[in-house]
Amino acid sequence: MRYRDKHVIVTGGLGFIGSNLSLRLVEEGARVTIFDSAVQGCGANRHNLAPAGGRINVLVRDIGQAEEVPALLATANVIFNLAGEISHVRSMKDPVRDMKLNTVAQLNFLEACARNVAGVRMVHAGTRQIYGVPRYLPMDELHPVEPVDFNGIHKAAADSYHALFARSGALDACVIRLSNVYGPRMALNVTGQGFLGNFIRKALVGDTIEIFGDGTQLRDPVFVDDAVEAFLAAGCAPKLEHRVFNLGGPAALSLSEIGSIMASESGVKVEHKPFPSDLKTIDIGSYHTNSSRLMGDFGWAPTTTFRQGLKKTLGYFRLHLPNYLESRDWPRAQELLASVPVAISE
Amino acid sequence: MRYRDKHVIVTGGLGFIGSNLSLRLVEEGARVTIFDSAVQGCGANRHNLAPAGGRINVLVRDIGQAEEVPALLATANVIFNLAGEISHVRSMKDPVRDMKLNTVAQLNFLEACARNVAGVRMVHAGTRQIYGVPRYLPMDELHPVEPVDFNGIHKAAADSYHALFARSGALDACVIRLSNVYGPRMALNVTGQGFLGNFIRKALVGDTIEIFGDGTQLRDPVFVDDAVEAFLAAGCAPKLEHRVFNLGGPAALSLSEIGSIMASESGVKVEHKPFPSDLKTIDIGSYHTNSSRLMGDFGWAPTTTFRQGLKKTLGYFRLHLPNYLESRDWPRAQELLASVPVAISE
Repeated sequence: MRYRDKHVIVTGGLGFIGSNLSLRLVEEGARVTIFDSAVQGCGANRHNLAPAGGRINVLVRDIGQAEEVPALLATANVIFNLAGEISHVRSMKDPVRDMKLNTVAQLNFLEACARNVAGVRMVHAGTRQIYGVPRYLPMDELHPVEPVDFNGIHKAAADSYHALFARSGALDACVIRLSNVYGPRMALNVTGQGFLGNFIRKALVGDTIEIFGDGTQLRDPVFVDDAVEAFLAAGCAPKLEHRVFNLGGPAALSLSEIGSIMASESGVKVEHKPFPSDLKTIDIGSYHTNSSRLMGDFGWAPTTTFRQGLKKTLGYFRLHLPNYLESRDWPRAQELLASVPVAISE
Repeated sequence: MRYRDKHVIVTGGLGFIGSNLSLRLVEEGARVTIFDSAVQGCGANRHNLAPAGGRINVLVRDIGQAEEVPALLATANVIFNLAGEISHVRSMKDPVRDMKLNTVAQLNFLEACARNVAGVRMVHAGTRQIYGVPRYLPMDELHPVEPVDFNGIHKAAADSYHALFARSGALDACVIRLSNVYGPRMALNVTGQGFLGNFIRKALVGDTIEIFGDGTQLRDPVFVDDAVEAFLAAGCAPKLEHRVFNLGGPAALSLSEIGSIMASESGVKVEHKPFPSDLKTIDIGSYHTNSSRLMGDFGWAPTTTFRQGLKKTLGYFRLHLPNYLESRDWPRAQELLASVPVAISE
C-alpha cells in the first residue's frame, strides 16, 4: 500500500484517466483531493467517481486558481497533474483557448505548488502528440519535439515547465507522455478525444466504424489500468532517474487490426474511407512507443492486450450507458446489447 | 536589389537586430514598416534608426494588436518577425510576463497575418537557447529542444507556431535560430541581453570584464551584418527548403579568447570569477553552431571574424556613446577613447 494515508492531489480528476487514477489511489488508502475545472467538453464526468462513494474531495476549480487554497497544497505528498484540454482538433479552431487551458493555467499551477509545497513529487500527463510526425519508430524520449497542432505546442510548453521546475529543484516533477489510452470512463461523447473513444462509442451503439486512409497506420493502444500503474510507480519512486517517459501499449496494431478486433468483440461494421482534409493536417501517420525507459526505471510493463482491454471497456460501458451516451443513443445500445452474446463484468 | 519597392514589415524594428535589418532594407529600396511595442527594457532605441532619416514608418504597437491595422498587413510582401523579450534572467523572475510577450503576442500576430496576408513569407528570429544544454556540438537543427529557462520555453512555442502556420500553408514561415549576435546598435544598457553586450559596454567605459567559470566555454559570436544577410536571403528565397535554420558565427571561440581579443582591441582588463549561482541554473556550457543548412540552402556564410566585427562595433559605439550609455558613463568612455589609439569608423 504505497499510498496509504498519503494526501494526493489529482488535477483533472473528473476526467477519464484522472478518475481511474483517483479510484485506484482510494483503494491504496490515499486521501485524494481532486482539482477539476469541469470545463465544458474536456471530459469531466462526476459519474466517473461513483465507486468512491464520496470518499474523494472534489474542488471544482481551475488549476490556475490553486493559489487560493495554499493550506491544501501545502499538505500534498504527491501531485498527479492531469488537467488539460486534449482535443487537437479544437485547438486548431481556437488556439488561444487551448493556450490558456494548457499553458497559462499550468504555469500558474506550478508556481503555486512551488511556493506552497516546494520539492513535491509531481507527475504530469503529457502526450506523444508533441513529437509530431515520427522520424523513427518506435519513438523514444529523445525524438525531436515538432508538434503539428496547437495542442501539441501548448502541451510541449507545459512539459517544459515541469522540466524547468525540476531542474531548479522547485518541484520533483516528471512527465509521462501518453499515447492512445482507452478504457472505462473514457469521454465517449466528447469530440476530439482520439479515435478510440469514437470507435468504442460506435461499437456500443452499432454505428459503422470508419477508418481513414488505408488502415495500415500503426497505433499502440494502452489500457487505462496500465497507464494508471505507471503514474502510481512514478509518484512513489524514491528517486526519479529521468524527467520524461514515453508510455505505450503492449503491441503496435494497424487501424485495420484494431477495427477487426472491435468488430469481433462487438459486432460493429468497419468501413475504409479517404482521409478528411481537416484531419489530414494534424495526422502523424504511424506511431508506436518505445517505453523502455519507463520499464527500466520502474519495472513497469503494459500487461493488457487490446482484446482484453476492449472486453473490459465494453463491459463497463454496457453497465453505465446513460452516464456516457446521449439519451437518444440508449435504446440502440440496449437493443444491440441484447443481441450480442458478450459477458458483462465489473 | 532584391527588395526594391517591396513593402516589408519588421517587428521589433527598434531593437538591435531589427534596426540593422530595417536600415539594410531601406538601402535595398524597400518600403519598411516597423512594429515595435517599445516595451521598457526590451532594447528598443529610436536612435538606432537615425541613418534612415525618417524613411521608415514606425508603429509603436504591440504585435498582438496587429489586427487593428489590417490594410497595412494586407500589403506586406515580406514580414521579418523579430519582436520579443530575449532576457533569460528576467524570464526566470517573471515567467508570466515572458509568456505574454513571446507566446501570446506571437500567436495573435500570426493569426492576424494569416487572416490578412495569407501565405506571406515570414522570417522569425528564434534563439539557440531553446535547445538547452548541448547533447552534441556543433549543434544542428535536429537537436532536441530542451529549454533551461522560461524564455527558451516561450521562444520554442513561438517557433512551433511558425512551423504550424507554415505546415497548413497559412504563412510561408521559417525560423532562424540565432546565437550571440553582436554589433552596432546592441542594447548595451539593457540587462539580460547576453554576455557580449555586457562585455562591449565594459570595454567602452573601461570596466573590467568578468569571465565566469574557467573561460574554456565556447561561443560562436555572429556579427550583426552577417545575421542580417541571412534574414535577407531567407526573406526573398523563391522557395524555402526548410523551416528552421541555425545561425552561428565563423568560428568557435573560448570565452578567454573572446576576452583576449576584446582586451587587445580596447585595452579593457579581463578577470576570471566563479559562476554566480543564479546564472548557473540557466548556463548551458559550451555552444557552437552547425550552420550548414543555412549555407546550403541560401549560399550564406558568416564572413566577419570576431576581431573585425568587434572593431566595427566599438567604432560605432564610440561615435554614438550618448545614445547607448548612461550619462554617468559618458566621461569615462570619452576619456578612455582619447587614450586608446583606435581608428573610428562606421
